[in-house]
Amino acid sequence: MTHTPTPDQRDATDPLAEFRDRFVIDDDLIYLDGNSLGRLPKATIGRVRGLMEQQWAHELVLGWEHWIDQGAEIGDQLAPLIGASKGEVVLCDQTSVNLYKVASAAMAASGRGNIVTDAGNFPSDRYVLGSLAAAHGGRLIVVPEDPSPADIDAVLDESVGVVSLSHVAYRSGAMLDARAITALAHERGTYVVWDLAHSAGSVPVDLNGWNADLAVGCTYKYLNGGPGAPGFLYVRSDLVDALEQPIAGWFSHADQFAMAQQYEPASSIRRFVVGTPPMLSLVGAASGIEITRKAGIDAIRAKSIALTEAFIDGISGMPEHGFTIVTPLDPAGRGSHVTLAHDNALQISKALRTRRLIPDFRSPNLIRFGFAPLYTTFDEVDRAIATIGSVMDSGEYLTIPASSDRVT
Amino acid sequence: MTHTPTPDQRDATDPLAEFRDRFVIDDDLIYLDGNSLGRLPKATIGRVRGLMEQQWAHELVLGWEHWIDQGAEIGDQLAPLIGASKGEVVLCDQTSVNLYKVASAAMAASGRGNIVTDAGNFPSDRYVLGSLAAAHGGRLIVVPEDPSPADIDAVLDESVGVVSLSHVAYRSGAMLDARAITALAHERGTYVVWDLAHSAGSVPVDLNGWNADLAVGCTYKYLNGGPGAPGFLYVRSDLVDALEQPIAGWFSHADQFAMAQQYEPASSIRRFVVGTPPMLSLVGAASGIEITRKAGIDAIRAKSIALTEAFIDGISGMPEHGFTIVTPLDPAGRGSHVTLAHDNALQISKALRTRRLIPDFRSPNLIRFGFAPLYTTFDEVDRAIATIGSVMDSGEYLTIPASSDRVT
Repeated sequence: MTHTPTPDQRDATDPLAEFRDRFVIDDDLIYLDGNSLGRLPKATIGRVRGLMEQQWAHELVLGWEHWIDQGAEIGDQLAPLIGASKGEVVLCDQTSVNLYKVASAAMAASGRGNIVTDAGNFPSDRYVLGSLAAAHGGRLIVVPEDPSPADIDAVLDESVGVVSLSHVAYRSGAMLDARAITALAHERGTYVVWDLAHSAGSVPVDLNGWNADLAVGCTYKYLNGGPGAPGFLYVRSDLVDALEQPIAGWFSHADQFAMAQQYEPASSIRRFVVGTPPMLSLVGAASGIEITRKAGIDAIRAKSIALTEAFIDGISGMPEHGFTIVTPLDPAGRGSHVTLAHDNALQISKALRTRRLIPDFRSPNLIRFGFAPLYTTFDEVDRAIATIGSVMDSGEYLTIPASSDRVT
Repeated sequence: MTHTPTPDQRDATDPLAEFRDRFVIDDDLIYLDGNSLGRLPKATIGRVRGLMEQQWAHELVLGWEHWIDQGAEIGDQLAPLIGASKGEVVLCDQTSVNLYKVASAAMAASGRGNIVTDAGNFPSDRYVLGSLAAAHGGRLIVVPEDPSPADIDAVLDESVGVVSLSHVAYRSGAMLDARAITALAHERGTYVVWDLAHSAGSVPVDLNGWNADLAVGCTYKYLNGGPGAPGFLYVRSDLVDALEQPIAGWFSHADQFAMAQQYEPASSIRRFVVGTPPMLSLVGAASGIEITRKAGIDAIRAKSIALTEAFIDGISGMPEHGFTIVTPLDPAGRGSHVTLAHDNALQISKALRTRRLIPDFRSPNLIRFGFAPLYTTFDEVDRAIATIGSVMDSGEYLTIPASSDRVT
C-alpha cells in the first residue's frame, strides 16, 4: 500500500530545506514570482553594505584595485552552473545590451542577413534581434512559440546568420531542446545565441556540452541577484578572439589603462565588456550565485520538478475553474514556472495578491507561478492551490477592475 | 594693506562648509580624486539599505511599481544641474553604452559617415566613436587635444555627422567652449554629443542654452553616485522623436508591458533606455545629485575656482621640482581638476599615496588632482601642497618602482 506524503512531510525530507533560511522571508506571504525577481539572500546584505560602507567609504578610488575584475570573477563562479568553463562568462550590462553585443558580433562574423527567433521569445530579444537583422539587410524570421528542432530546421538556410531563442520560455515555461537546435544550426554554419534568463539556477544548462556558441542571461531571477542586477554573457572560448562586439569600450581594450589612441580588443572575455560596472548591483549578485552553487543544480532541478508537479496536480484537480495549463505537462519539457491561461487572468492575479499570494500576470491572459527550489516549500504550493481554489470558488476576482498594471 | 586669509579662515567662511559633513570622511586622508570616484554621501547608506533590506526583501517584485521609472525621475532631478528640462535626461546603462546609443542615433539621422573628436578625449569615447564612424563607412577625424572652436571649424564639412567632445577634458582639465562649438557644428548640419563626465556637478553646464543636441555623462565623479553608478544621457526634447537608438529594448518600447510583437519606440526619453536598471546602483546615485542641487552649481563653481587657484599657486611656488601645470591657468578655461606633468609622475603618485594623499596617475606622465567643492577644504589643499613639497624635497619617490598599476 502506497503512502502519499503530506506537504509538511515532503518539506521535512527536502534535501534543500536548509537553504530557505539563507533568504529574508516573510512567512505569511506565498511568493511564487522568483522567476521574475528572486529573494534577498541574507549574505547579500553584508556584501553590499561592506562594499558601500567599508570599501567605497574608506578605500575610495583604491577600491577599484579589487573591484575591476569582479564581473569576470563572479562569471567564473557562475560558469559551472551553466556548463561553461573558466574565462567564458562575465557579468556586465543588462541582458538586452548583452544580447545586442553578442548577436551583433555573430551576425558580423556570419556575413549573413537573417535571424531566426520564435514568437514567444522575450520582447527585448525580439526587438533587439529584429533591429539587428534590419541593420544587416535581412529580416527576422519568426517561427511559432516554443519551437521544436524540426520547426527551426524548416527555416534554416544559408541566409540565417543567427538563431536566438530562450532556452526556457518566459511565457509558457517550455524548455527547448538546446542541444539538438544548436547542432542543426551548426550544420548550416549558423551561430546560436541562447537566452538563459529563465534557465540559469533553475535547470541544468550544459553550454559546453551543447557546443553552444554564445549565451546571455540574467542574475535577478533564480540566481537571486537583486532588482536589475547585471546580466551575464557567455562566449565559447574558441570564439572569443574570432568575434568583435560593436560597443568598443575601455574595458574591452587589450590594455585598458594604457588609454591608447588605437582600439585593440582584449583576447579574453573582457573583449565583451564595455564600461565601468555598477558595483553595488554587481556585488549584490555574488551571494545568490554562491548559494545556488552550494545547493547544486541537480538537487535544484529535482525539487523544481517535484514542486511544479505538485502545483500542476493541484490545478488539474479543479477543472471547474477553467484554467488551461499552458506549460508542458512532461517535466522534461519545462523549466521551473507553470503558466495558466484564463480569460480573467488579470483579475485573478490581483485577487491572489490581496490574499498574499504573488504570481505574475502576463498580458493578455496568462498567470505565471514560479517555483524557486532554494526557498519555495511544498507547504507553500499546497497553500497556493488552496488560495487559488478559494478565490475561484468565491468569485471575488470578478469585482476587481481588469485595468492593467505593471510588474516586470 | 591687504590681508591674505589662512586656509582655516577660508574654510571658516566657506558657504559650502556645511556640506562636508554630509559625506563619510576619514580626516587623516587627503582625497583629491573625487573626479574619479566621489565620496559616499551619508544619506546614500539609508537609501541603498532601504531599497535592499525593506523594498527588495519585503515588497519583492511589487517594488517595480515604484522602481521602474526611477531612472527618469532621478534624471529630472539632475536636469537643472546641466541646463536641461524635465523629460530630457535619464539615468541608465554606463556612459560608454549611452554614448554608443546617442551617437549611433545621430549618425543614422545625419546620413553622413565621419565623426570628429579630439586626441585627448576619453578612451571609451574615442573607441566607440571610431567604430561607429567605420560602421557608417566613414572615419574618425581626430583633432589635437583640447581644441578651440577654430580647430573644430577647420575640419567641419558636410561629411561630418557628429562632433563628440568632452566638455571638460579628463586629462588636462581644460574646459571647451561648448556654446561656440555647438553653434559651428549646427551651421554645417552636424550633431554634437557632449560628454559631461567631468562637468556634471562641478561646472555650470547649460545644455538648453547651448542648444545642445545630445549629451552623456557619469554620476560617480562629482555627483558622488558610487562606483560604476549608472550614467546619464540627455536628448533635446525636439530630437526625442526624431532619433532612433540602435538597441531596441523592452524599456524603449511605447507600451512596455504589452510585450507586443512589433517594436514601437516610446515618444519620450525612455526611447533611449534599453533594459531593467540596476536598482541598487541606481538608487545609490540619488543622494549625491540631491546634495549637489542643494549646494547650487554657482557656489560649487566659485569654490572650485578658489580651490584650484590655491593649488596652482602652491605648485607655482615650487618651480625647483619640475612640475609642468598642464591645466589652463585661466580659471574660465578649466574644470575642477588640475593636472601636473612630471617625468616621475607614477612614482610621485605612489609616494603621495603612502603619505595619505590620493591623487590619480594617468599614463604616461600625468598626475591629476581633483577638487570636489562639496567636501574638499582649503586646509586640505594647503596640506596637499606641503605633502607634495615634502615628497619632492626628500626624493623618496625615486626609490619606488615605476611599474604601472590600475586605478580608474
